[in-house]
This record gives sequence, C-alpha cells and structure tokens, in this order.
Amino acid sequence: MSSNADTVPVFHTVSELRSWRSDQRKQGKTVGLVPTMGALHNGHLTLVSAAQQSCDTTVVSIFVNPAQFAPHEDLDQYPRTLPQDIQKIAETQANCVVFAPLVSEMYPNGITTDRSKQKGTFVEVLGLSEMLEGGSRPHFFRGVATVVSKLFHIVMPEMAFFGQKDVQQCCVIKNLVADLLFPIKLNIVPTVRDPVDGLALSSRNVYLTEEQRAKAPALYRGLCAAQKLYSQGITGREELIGAVAAEAAQENLDIEYICLSSPDTLEELDSVPSSGAILSSAWRMGKTRLIDNVLIGFEF
Amino acid sequence: MSSNADTVPVFHTVSELRSWRSDQRKQGKTVGLVPTMGALHNGHLTLVSAAQQSCDTTVVSIFVNPAQFAPHEDLDQYPRTLPQDIQKIAETQANCVVFAPLVSEMYPNGITTDRSKQKGTFVEVLGLSEMLEGGSRPHFFRGVATVVSKLFHIVMPEMAFFGQKDVQQCCVIKNLVADLLFPIKLNIVPTVRDPVDGLALSSRNVYLTEEQRAKAPALYRGLCAAQKLYSQGITGREELIGAVAAEAAQENLDIEYICLSSPDTLEELDSVPSSGAILSSAWRMGKTRLIDNVLIGFEF
Repeated sequence: MSSNADTVPVFHTVSELRSWRSDQRKQGKTVGLVPTMGALHNGHLTLVSAAQQSCDTTVVSIFVNPAQFAPHEDLDQYPRTLPQDIQKIAETQANCVVFAPLVSEMYPNGITTDRSKQKGTFVEVLGLSEMLEGGSRPHFFRGVATVVSKLFHIVMPEMAFFGQKDVQQCCVIKNLVADLLFPIKLNIVPTVRDPVDGLALSSRNVYLTEEQRAKAPALYRGLCAAQKLYSQGITGREELIGAVAAEAAQENLDIEYICLSSPDTLEELDSVPSSGAILSSAWRMGKTRLIDNVLIGFEF
Repeated sequence: MSSNADTVPVFHTVSELRSWRSDQRKQGKTVGLVPTMGALHNGHLTLVSAAQQSCDTTVVSIFVNPAQFAPHEDLDQYPRTLPQDIQKIAETQANCVVFAPLVSEMYPNGITTDRSKQKGTFVEVLGLSEMLEGGSRPHFFRGVATVVSKLFHIVMPEMAFFGQKDVQQCCVIKNLVADLLFPIKLNIVPTVRDPVDGLALSSRNVYLTEEQRAKAPALYRGLCAAQKLYSQGITGREELIGAVAAEAAQENLDIEYICLSSPDTLEELDSVPSSGAILSSAWRMGKTRLIDNVLIGFEF
C-alpha cells in the first residue's frame, strides 16, 4: 500500500485490497465500488459521491483494461493520470480507497488485445454484446464483463456504481449481475454534462481539438430535441432518430449509429413502448469516437 | 426450507441459502461447497468427508445443470434421486446442508440446451474447453464454468471440493478460480473406485447392463498398466497409450479417445515431462459414455 499526502490509501495488489476488505467486514462496514479506467472527471466524482451516500466506504478502482480494447484502438494512448486522479478523490473528502492494480494482478496469465489469441477465463453476456457498441467493437463487452467480474470478486462490494453515459455497459452489467447471481446491488447514475453546452463528460474529450469540441454538443442537442418530441406524444422511430440526425447534420458530424433500443434486450424498436426506450448514438470526430444517450419514457 | 427426519436442512431457493450463509458468517463459521448433480455415490460422499475435515459446515449442491448437456444427451434421463441423496448425506453425520434449487432459480431468464440459442451470461475458459471431453461435448465446459460461478456467488464458500474423476473439469475450474480471482481454495479429491475391480464410481454406471459392467474395468486396468510402465522409466506417449489400448481391446471397448495431456494446458504430450501428465480416456458402452484417468508423475 502507498498513501499520498491527503491520506487516500492506494492499493496496488489483490492481496492488499483483500486484507483491507476483510478488516472492513469485521468492522461491519458496507463497501461500494466505483470501477473506472482513471482520467477522472466530474462524471466519475459524481459516482463517488453517490457511493458515499449509500456505503460506509468506497473503493475507486483505476485500471485501463486491455481486454476491452481492440488492437487498433487507443490502449497505449488512453490517458493515465494516477497522481491527479488520487488528488481529485482526496478533494472529495469521501471515505475512499483507491485500487490501482498492475495488469499482471488482474490477468495473472497475461492478456492480449488480439481476441483470437486470448486464452483463459472470459465472461460474456450473449444477446446484449453484439449490437450498438458491440457492432464496431466486438471485443468490448466481453472485456468489460470479465474485468467487472474480477473486480467484484476482489472487492466484494455490497453496491456498485456505473454511469448512464455508457448505457449499453449498464445493460450488460445489469444482466451479468442478475444471471450470475452476484450478491451486489447496482446503482446507475445519470450522465454528468458540461453545464454550458451539455456535452457528456468523457475521458476521451481531451482528444478533441478546439473546433471539434465546439461542434460536439450538437449530438446532445439532437437527443434533447427527440426527448421534447416524445414529451409531445411522438413515439415513432423515424421521427426521434430524425431529430438527432438533423442536429448532427448541422455540424456535419460523422455519425456511426443512432439507435432506438429496448432497455431490456437492446433490440431496435419501431416506436417507444410503455416500458420506454434508449436513444443512443456514436460518432467520430477525427480519430476520436464519442457516445451519448438519453432515456425515453423510463428511468433505471 | 424443508427438513427431513434426519435433520439435514434442505434449501430450494437462492434467498434461503443466502440467509443461512449470512448467519454462518456472523457465527464465524467456514463453509465448504461440494457441487454435485445428485445421484450420489461413495465418490460424492468422499468429497463431503473431505469438506467436513476442512470446514465448519458443508453445502452439498444438487443440481442437474441443463447448460452442460447437449440436446441429444441424457438431460431428461439423468438420474434424479433427491430423497435418497438427502438420506445418504444424513447418514454421513457430517455438518451439512443441501442446496437443491429449481432451474428457474439458477437460470432466472431460462436456459436451452441448444447452444446456438443461448442468451444471457456465460463463463468460458478458453484454451482448456475445446480438447478431450470438449471435442465431443463443445457445450460442456461453458455450462460447467457458468453454473460453478453461480454456485460460488450464491454459497460464497471458503473452499470447494471436486473429484479427480472429472479431471478436465478440475483443470477448467482451477483456471476459472485463478483467472477470475475467486477468493476460494480448491481441493481436488482422488477418484473413488469399486474396491474389487477398480471401476471409477459414476452416476452413469447405473445405465450399464450386467455384461457392460463386467467389461468396463478393463479401461482402468489399462491405466494402471501404463502407470506401472512409467514407474519402470517409460515416458513415451505411444507406449503409455498403447498399454491402455491393449487392455481395452481385450474387452473390445469402443474407445473415443486415450490422451496423454499437460495438466496445465491439456495440450497433448509426446512424453511425460518432469511436471507430469494426465492419462485420460473416454469410451462408450451401448448408449452410455464413461470416462476415467490417472495422474502420471504429479499430484494435484
């Protein structure tokens, strides 16, 4: 264990974390888990704050998980800012510890981003992992479900906190927990946005040029326009997706998909049923790929 | 919960088992898990006895897991003998409870044996699940790894006990526990055999006709002959496998495979290295498929 000036304990090994966890259990303390890949922003800190409200102590895990990157993706370039992350957590004054393991702790037998060569144990949520983000990132949700399962086994939290920004991840984890009977309560926290223009906070926003950053909020304007249409009684797929596409077109955004999906199965919908829908999109700005979503007619 | 005359508590739901487990934790009791598909014989009872020696209390799970059967296999015919199983556990006088869940408890969203139609969360140990038993039963180890993960999450045992008879299963579970960082110690217990002719005990032995039963021990005689050769300094694949094949041929057994494999990777070996090898076989007697193995030059 190492500790910084602001006394947030930082654990780097599974055995250190387990020993700490065992003490917490003996003291009857409940533990929340906020899994992150670091490069923390206010979105993450909102998750920490939500955990703080429900649990005695919170584990913030910081681990850039190789298994959820493809060979051509930004694993090496992904921002790694551990000292600043620890500082930000310290400033929340929450009762936190940081778990920042090496890759060798999480993948004792190693891990390659080449999915065809991966060996060892993997967890997969069939039926939810192939569409939307899974379309262009077929490795992604297997990597997420696997690393989250490992974190659950290490931390054994009573509750775990995920951001709605990664809405498909929320659906996948919800099914993971239910199907594998993890004794863990999930808490899905609304997306945190730029207070001025509404762009969803993302660690990848740092990749954007000034010009790209100025255009990016058009997508969220489109999602809000679709929400407004729904509030006026319009439920059709074409109208709602069209509203997003129209705003995106104004800034000439390079759209990968705009989908209206079932919150349970992620299957595409022709219209919003009484159980609600997810309206989500992915788009590219130069080499950067961004995602966003709104919930239509339901809440998690 | 139901309870029989001999006072072995029997739980049928996840929530009942969890509530009991929570009490055990409060009392500071360690819990062992013996996962079974029922139709208990002395092999299973030896696992119970091993658990009893290491843990304060033992959960014997009895669940015929649909996900590890293929559509053409014996899921419907697999022997289900819960009252007799409970009676046998009671007679061990061990400090046990039985967990006998319905399929709907273990697979809340249902389960089909048609692998191509399976939805939901599955756990797979890549690289160990495709050979040996995985060759003719490609669905098998995904089903095993998935149900064992669920049982681990429900029971949260300190230790789990598996029989060496299902040796590839032991290798798969060993990797599952290591890779997914389950906080569980594995204990692999030597195969229990008929005291007269050495046939490995198996729930499927009840399918054998008298004539088949008389011929079946030839395979184990072959495995012993190979072990004897190894003790005489012979390490070559052809000689060791040949010794098994020769005994099997005497009884005209319908051999599916005889393999000399690495205990770590299950890859086929040309000879037994210093780290040892597994010599294993599967064969058919009418509609019944049997397996057996010996360890050469190592112990689990």
